[in-house]
Amino acid sequence: MKKILILLLALPLAAMAQPGDDAAVIKKISDEILRNGRAYELLYQLTKQVGGRLAGSPQFAKAIQWGKTAMEKNGADNVFLQECMVPHWVRGGQDKAVIIEVDKKKTSRELDVLALGNSLGSGTVTAEVLAVADFAELERRKDEVKGKIVYYNAGFDPTNVKPFISYGQTGIYRRSGPSRAAKYGAVGVMIRSLTESAANDPHTGAMAYMDSFPKIPAIAVGPRDADEVWILSRKSNFTMSMTTNGHFLPDTIGYNVVAELKGTEFPGQFITVGGHLDSWDVNEGASDDGTGVVHTIEIMRALQAIGYKPKHTIRFVLFANEENGLRGGTKYAEEAKAKGEKHIFALESDAGGFTPRGFSVGVNKEQMAKLQSWLPLLSPYGTEEFTNGGGGADVSPLMSLGTPVSELGPDQQRYFDLHHARSDVFEKVNKRELLLGAVNMAALIYLVDKYGL
Amino acid sequence: MKKILILLLALPLAAMAQPGDDAAVIKKISDEILRNGRAYELLYQLTKQVGGRLAGSPQFAKAIQWGKTAMEKNGADNVFLQECMVPHWVRGGQDKAVIIEVDKKKTSRELDVLALGNSLGSGTVTAEVLAVADFAELERRKDEVKGKIVYYNAGFDPTNVKPFISYGQTGIYRRSGPSRAAKYGAVGVMIRSLTESAANDPHTGAMAYMDSFPKIPAIAVGPRDADEVWILSRKSNFTMSMTTNGHFLPDTIGYNVVAELKGTEFPGQFITVGGHLDSWDVNEGASDDGTGVVHTIEIMRALQAIGYKPKHTIRFVLFANEENGLRGGTKYAEEAKAKGEKHIFALESDAGGFTPRGFSVGVNKEQMAKLQSWLPLLSPYGTEEFTNGGGGADVSPLMSLGTPVSELGPDQQRYFDLHHARSDVFEKVNKRELLLGAVNMAALIYLVDKYGL
Repeated sequence: MKKILILLLALPLAAMAQPGDDAAVIKKISDEILRNGRAYELLYQLTKQVGGRLAGSPQFAKAIQWGKTAMEKNGADNVFLQECMVPHWVRGGQDKAVIIEVDKKKTSRELDVLALGNSLGSGTVTAEVLAVADFAELERRKDEVKGKIVYYNAGFDPTNVKPFISYGQTGIYRRSGPSRAAKYGAVGVMIRSLTESAANDPHTGAMAYMDSFPKIPAIAVGPRDADEVWILSRKSNFTMSMTTNGHFLPDTIGYNVVAELKGTEFPGQFITVGGHLDSWDVNEGASDDGTGVVHTIEIMRALQAIGYKPKHTIRFVLFANEENGLRGGTKYAEEAKAKGEKHIFALESDAGGFTPRGFSVGVNKEQMAKLQSWLPLLSPYGTEEFTNGGGGADVSPLMSLGTPVSELGPDQQRYFDLHHARSDVFEKVNKRELLLGAVNMAALIYLVDKYGL
Repeated sequence: MKKILILLLALPLAAMAQPGDDAAVIKKISDEILRNGRAYELLYQLTKQVGGRLAGSPQFAKAIQWGKTAMEKNGADNVFLQECMVPHWVRGGQDKAVIIEVDKKKTSRELDVLALGNSLGSGTVTAEVLAVADFAELERRKDEVKGKIVYYNAGFDPTNVKPFISYGQTGIYRRSGPSRAAKYGAVGVMIRSLTESAANDPHTGAMAYMDSFPKIPAIAVGPRDADEVWILSRKSNFTMSMTTNGHFLPDTIGYNVVAELKGTEFPGQFITVGGHLDSWDVNEGASDDGTGVVHTIEIMRALQAIGYKPKHTIRFVLFANEENGLRGGTKYAEEAKAKGEKHIFALESDAGGFTPRGFSVGVNKEQMAKLQSWLPLLSPYGTEEFTNGGGGADVSPLMSLGTPVSELGPDQQRYFDLHHARSDVFEKVNKRELLLGAVNMAALIYLVDKYGL
């Protein structure tokens, strides 16, 4: 029993040297953000004055300048641009899908669709539709695929309490569905949008072709239209025409926007906080990932406003290209490695600006124990748990170099209503929820800066 | 040490007799609600087909019929109406406030305002405005009050992480502000709306006059207009005209709508679940309290759908008059007392249909310990805590009779954006968040039914 007692006592004492002081500093950070936070106004600028900003687009170039200026105006010790080549995919026109024949009778039922990001199209493909529930049904019916448009009806499982679990289960249909159908001779693919939204907006997002199969066009259909298509497919044969014009232009120069608050004790050791500046082209990129961008700037502003002098250098990074290439996050880690930088922690916000509930982390056991010991300091602001689910996409290349990483875990229920859809706009973000995300992230950064990880 | 060990082991064993079975039943309830839940469609009907439904209004009468039918169609063993007299306040026209003179120069700046519920008005009052930060300033300047319109700028403290704390702090300005100014001769009162919303919608809500002072008209002003008024008041003298026409018609007959699932072991012992059917007149009453109404019906539907046979009789109650009288909740407790009914638990949903986070409860220590022991069963669905803050308003009269009570505690950040404002509409409710509220409430009801409290 003695051993256990010592462990119980030793852990909090070691990790929380001055809990009273820490609570006071965190309260100061929280008050500053909730009272004077600029994140909401910054998000308005980014969404309404810059707008959708896919890597390579003119809006993306505008976003880089906006981000640099916003960093400079909000307390950075210095701001620099980190060059990296980014892909330049363009939608190339209005995506369209029309059911033109049902059981050999002509009709004209237009579906609300979006081409998948990175997909290639050069006009209209018309073919009979083979609707399947999932990959298992595709495999069973592979002999029927040739010459057809394959429709995957795989949707979110509504009984998963956490929608990110559902996204994990069905994301593969968007990423790999086209090539897996092309393998058996499909001429086009349509997927059910990855959402449980009650609205019909289609949801785009990145896909990737396997080089060994034809690069067929691929679209996502709105969930209400998907319901109809699925019902229709169970009783009728039907033919659809789908029109897409996605293509790649040559890679262009993009930039990570990086700001720093210089460390006073360990200026050569880095803590990274970031979000990604790029977004899909069809919306304002408010929750994906405008909220992460303004969380990042807000944390810097607030730490500077309360006069906090970090021990380590804190880097605030707006990553260049999360959505369809991860070139920004990859470049950031490459440079860190090339320069031999020591990165002690990296945190991203890329799951929306909803009420914060916790953090996903990619850490070892000792680090997890340390994080857990901080929960009493963080829980008054919303953080209930650290779950070992890795960090954000942009900091994952740093994780490969051994850096412990994390991602803010806001409430998940509304995220996939907006994710990659037209509905991802400023108006869907709540000011207080947004600010509280910054509060919890800033508090965690403060603790890591003070105690290490 | 031995004692502590035994305690640690004994508590969960006693309270969670068959944790595996309970987890399975709760999962079954959750799956049923998340897969087949009708709460969102019912909310659409109530908000769009019935609309705002203040007690005494024709829409309220329509809501009673709607509620009765919805209960009957969704699995009730029996449904009855419980008559109670309800107040019948009417707004009586368009509320208006205009700044007509600033520093003796004529102007015309219209403010977005709503008369407070229960306030009396009979046309236009024009007077100089005395703006005060709070009651303390009112008391200091009481000699300046006579003949003026008093404006209270008391707003939510943004540094409170939980907005219900702020509502607790400032609600008194709405309820008592008019009479406290009338005491010193004020001819009208305007309050800052009780919200932190970034929008300018004014927020109404109930006030009450003290009989000893004149019953002066009272309005709430939208928060952005409030900002302007406050700035103006610090540098200028200004005159305002305010027009309201609120008055009471004679009390009318209203009804609590009550449905039952009959108890198989203790049919004469009751568990109550409810929400309130009435709402303010200026909106659709979606989050206040359409969500509580449809939570209530959904829980009944789901328990019936999975074939659950409760040990105790479960009452599902749509209360008649929470907003400006509490006559429904009062009547329900009176009848319970008169009939000598044994009520073992009463739970209300009246804090919105946002992601559930926990329950507020009004219970004793032993009951709290029992509730806490159930957290591992509830936390997968969102319930993180039981906090001792009492139950919903409609079940508080039962609490006075000794019944342990509770209220669902959803995430609070968006509630006061909508509360009593025009913006409280169906579109602001998320389907999954709504359904998850019903899941957590149903799970708690199941545990109380099985183990008592």
